[in-house]
Amino acid sequence: MNLPITYNNVLEASIRLKDKAIKTPVFTSRTANQHSGASLFFKCENFQHVGAFKFRGAYNAIASLSDEQRQKGVLTFSSGNHAQAIAYASHLFGIQALIVMPEDAPEIKVAATKGYGAKIHFYDRYQQNREVIANQLAEEHGYSIIPPYDHPDVIAGQGTCAKELIEEVGLLDYLFVPLGGGGLLAGSLLTAKTLLPSVKVIGVEPEAGNDAQQSLRSGQIVTIETPKSIADGALTTHIGNYNFQIIRNLVDDIVTVKDNDLISMMNFFASRMKIIVEPTACLGAAAVFNALIPVKNKRVGIILSGGNVDMKQFAQWIS
Amino acid sequence: MNLPITYNNVLEASIRLKDKAIKTPVFTSRTANQHSGASLFFKCENFQHVGAFKFRGAYNAIASLSDEQRQKGVLTFSSGNHAQAIAYASHLFGIQALIVMPEDAPEIKVAATKGYGAKIHFYDRYQQNREVIANQLAEEHGYSIIPPYDHPDVIAGQGTCAKELIEEVGLLDYLFVPLGGGGLLAGSLLTAKTLLPSVKVIGVEPEAGNDAQQSLRSGQIVTIETPKSIADGALTTHIGNYNFQIIRNLVDDIVTVKDNDLISMMNFFASRMKIIVEPTACLGAAAVFNALIPVKNKRVGIILSGGNVDMKQFAQWIS
Repeated sequence: MNLPITYNNVLEASIRLKDKAIKTPVFTSRTANQHSGASLFFKCENFQHVGAFKFRGAYNAIASLSDEQRQKGVLTFSSGNHAQAIAYASHLFGIQALIVMPEDAPEIKVAATKGYGAKIHFYDRYQQNREVIANQLAEEHGYSIIPPYDHPDVIAGQGTCAKELIEEVGLLDYLFVPLGGGGLLAGSLLTAKTLLPSVKVIGVEPEAGNDAQQSLRSGQIVTIETPKSIADGALTTHIGNYNFQIIRNLVDDIVTVKDNDLISMMNFFASRMKIIVEPTACLGAAAVFNALIPVKNKRVGIILSGGNVDMKQFAQWIS
Repeated sequence: MNLPITYNNVLEASIRLKDKAIKTPVFTSRTANQHSGASLFFKCENFQHVGAFKFRGAYNAIASLSDEQRQKGVLTFSSGNHAQAIAYASHLFGIQALIVMPEDAPEIKVAATKGYGAKIHFYDRYQQNREVIANQLAEEHGYSIIPPYDHPDVIAGQGTCAKELIEEVGLLDYLFVPLGGGGLLAGSLLTAKTLLPSVKVIGVEPEAGNDAQQSLRSGQIVTIETPKSIADGALTTHIGNYNFQIIRNLVDDIVTVKDNDLISMMNFFASRMKIIVEPTACLGAAAVFNALIPVKNKRVGIILSGGNVDMKQFAQWIS
């Protein structure tokens, strides 16, 4: 097995991220344990800078550029959290960021991105190809492109989240990871399969956008129509190349979850655990709560990947 | 100054509570610091057992009973969080709890209390005196009464919250504490004024129920009509005797906050810090955000006392 990135890259990322990323807390819940019959450990990346794990990969990627590259600025395309992450990380480095963002991105994410001083270029996600637009803009202005998931430094950065979780709680039998483009899952796999050779790692997609599940089964990257789901962080049409190489070799299974189950989880997290978790970030927990994989009496890590949700929308879901 | 309870009682409580209460995290927020111009440290008791600091006092009080007393069961009267706390602590000790609770207590609190196996006796908070009812029931059945705030062991238990906060963050210039019956404030005063002799401790009440502020100014306990405020944990008509002895001697000031400012804070905590904080628990933060006391460039502790709020109600407030 010859992977494009290894756990060494995650270790390097963890050094760059030291004192930059928040070492987010791991929460437990008596009620959640009773419900699942397992010991659940929730890694709360909703408390990360910019409200999502994406800060890890974004910061690591910018930190890995040369000084000269960095000074020309960076560009990315993103449905939201990666955009904020690039914007905030660029702000920390004092460099310019340009974000290519879909017109229907959640308002809270647009406002937060602008708030960090980034420029935004909007596009229509159902009509235009964001990568084509990004390449044109980068060529014109000399920006370095930092894509949201299909990038070694991004994947390595995301792997630091599982590293912290495992260092804190020790042995895990399972690790459940939300899956959109595959950055968090690929990084988590590099970490988990190195530190805990017998752990089973499960990627969880929205049912409406199960391209990665299809890709795993068919052995090649499957591209689908832009899916419609409330899991707005997982509306990818296909997973990344780097990500797929890692995922197909290391993942134990990929399962899917319905939007209604994400809403139930948001309610659970708010009412019982007192935390705001965004729909995409509920994917792993929903898989466990709906027993898609049997985890009784097991030690189970679940990555809650972010907490950025429009409050009006959230209010509708919980009422 | 001859106080009925001292910091030694808090130390004893902290030994009883070791590995029983959750050592809740202390959160910080870049945005909150920018907004206030200060360094704010939020002690997140919304993550405590039963979703509120009340577990500390309840557990400590039950642990302080003799075996014989405990076996006869305990009784309390409460607007909610103390009820859940007594119910859950009783469950941990395997003893019977009876809760005298107002008919209009939030549904989530009634359900949670029953969920812990406690019996509930409802009363009308605008017509009946809960303490009279409680005394009758206790006499009939031999229960030990553990009132929600006017009790040395309850106050000592609540003081462990500020102890953890100060041990974690060190020097504080200010500490803001929600104020209803005065259990949390009295306990916090014993702790803070011992560990940090120069800290200023501010109690914060809902504007509609400023009985403690009136009491401090007049030098004796003032009783008001049951106030109407969304801060349902601070709807007391008067503070306790033990509490007042401590508060009048040690508190630096008592300020009041409007309900609308509590709603703004709930929104801030949900959207920016990704946490659910109940209205009463927003009192301290609202005082700081509205600059009722100038704290610029200071190190400020704020106790977020709980997170139990009906989700439908919460949805209305944040939308």
